[in-house]
Amino acid sequence: MTREQLFEEIARKRSFLCVGLDTDYEKIPAHLREDRAPLYAFNRAVIDATAPYAVAFKPNLAFYEAQGAHGVAQFEATCRYIGQAYPEILIIADAKRGDIGNTSEMYARALAGFADAVTLAPYMGRDTVDPFLKYEDKWAVILALTSNPSADDFETQPMADGRPLWKHVLEKAATWGCEPHGPLKSSTNEDRVMFVVGATRAETLKEVREIVPDHFLLVPGVGAQGGSLEEVARHGLNSQCGLLVNSSRAIIYADRTERFAEAAATQARVMATRMAELL
Amino acid sequence: MTREQLFEEIARKRSFLCVGLDTDYEKIPAHLREDRAPLYAFNRAVIDATAPYAVAFKPNLAFYEAQGAHGVAQFEATCRYIGQAYPEILIIADAKRGDIGNTSEMYARALAGFADAVTLAPYMGRDTVDPFLKYEDKWAVILALTSNPSADDFETQPMADGRPLWKHVLEKAATWGCEPHGPLKSSTNEDRVMFVVGATRAETLKEVREIVPDHFLLVPGVGAQGGSLEEVARHGLNSQCGLLVNSSRAIIYADRTERFAEAAATQARVMATRMAELL
Repeated sequence: MTREQLFEEIARKRSFLCVGLDTDYEKIPAHLREDRAPLYAFNRAVIDATAPYAVAFKPNLAFYEAQGAHGVAQFEATCRYIGQAYPEILIIADAKRGDIGNTSEMYARALAGFADAVTLAPYMGRDTVDPFLKYEDKWAVILALTSNPSADDFETQPMADGRPLWKHVLEKAATWGCEPHGPLKSSTNEDRVMFVVGATRAETLKEVREIVPDHFLLVPGVGAQGGSLEEVARHGLNSQCGLLVNSSRAIIYADRTERFAEAAATQARVMATRMAELL
Repeated sequence: MTREQLFEEIARKRSFLCVGLDTDYEKIPAHLREDRAPLYAFNRAVIDATAPYAVAFKPNLAFYEAQGAHGVAQFEATCRYIGQAYPEILIIADAKRGDIGNTSEMYARALAGFADAVTLAPYMGRDTVDPFLKYEDKWAVILALTSNPSADDFETQPMADGRPLWKHVLEKAATWGCEPHGPLKSSTNEDRVMFVVGATRAETLKEVREIVPDHFLLVPGVGAQGGSLEEVARHGLNSQCGLLVNSSRAIIYADRTERFAEAAATQARVMATRMAELL
């Protein structure tokens, strides 16, 4: 999916909501657990219910892998379902992969067939990201500043110039792929790279925007993790929106009974309504 | 598997060889590609052939995920086979996972059932690693200094104190889990944490050993990537061996015909013989 297509969908729905499909076998309604493919059954219902309000779905690979190969099959089925029923909605495989060389090529091959975008860890540098940039119209979503307590172990630590590691990640990663023989041929870095920035540090979004004014940011942590949507929008929005705000548990587990899909729709609609006011 | 058990196996076989199962559907012998589970069929043959010389097997998740859910099932079958036929050999799931909170718990749950050890990326800090330390006798294998060219993007960059990021990773990660209420109860950090250090930078192993003299190091890049085993041993060995040297392609693709398993055994034996001299 191109940046233009994504922005069109945002403008059409007046929403920048990403629904996180952190589908936990233990947390889905009891009646679904007897389904042959319970994660997929749950996802289909949530997807149908929230699609009018969402511009992206983000299945989190860990939850599917926790169910073994059969869980991975349900991740694949979920992506296929979104692609067929809602081709205008971005699919982000939240995999946080980070490897190099032929291994990274393999991850790219594994995920590009199912998703429009993949989350990646930057520790090993651009060798992790390049294989993903070779796929036209696919996005690399790179971890920059996360909202967990131990982000202070390394991400926020000062480098030799006094600026934190995460700013160096933004600066370097925003140049990747654009060299004369780089994998990005007909598109710019902003067309193919997004960054993950946690919402619990909304004030730092201003600093993020000083470094990457035009990139899309994927912002988790609004809702369950306590970030404020208004704060995020104030500091993060740009002329092409430039934000995808993710909510997982607050939407998909809004209700644990047979009415879970309706409840998810209600939560997603509330979020989208607030987003429309902010756009 | 405990550190004592691992060291016993090293002493018994006089080898610190880890065989990397980077099993690529495109590269396995043609006659196996018609098998219903070709990666698994290839792995079984390689495992049986090299087990006398190896103290660890390291299946690389990317290669299995590239074949979708059916590939993941073959990863699982491979781990189960090793566990049943060779319970004394360490299984390292080379997954390079790196997430936090309940997602990290999910990855731990997904992998601890199959493998003795999991490779992890340190970018997000200790929140990534803690869930893995909660499983008794399982190992977290943390990326420190890798051998790819873009390791210079961040890993080798100087922090505020002038020392590179990778040294800070070693130093911090070597303390994780050991606090009064930390997940490590009856074991020390060295009993449960290893570090990945690339072999193409063998001279820096000396600096690694100044920071983590007692930890096991997993060293890829000997063989296909050009590192020298003798150099690695000179700087990396400690009183409990402290090294696992990985070789993947040079062993498993030594021959591409029906004689692949014999050829793999020969290569593994050559490596183990050199290792015996170095121990």
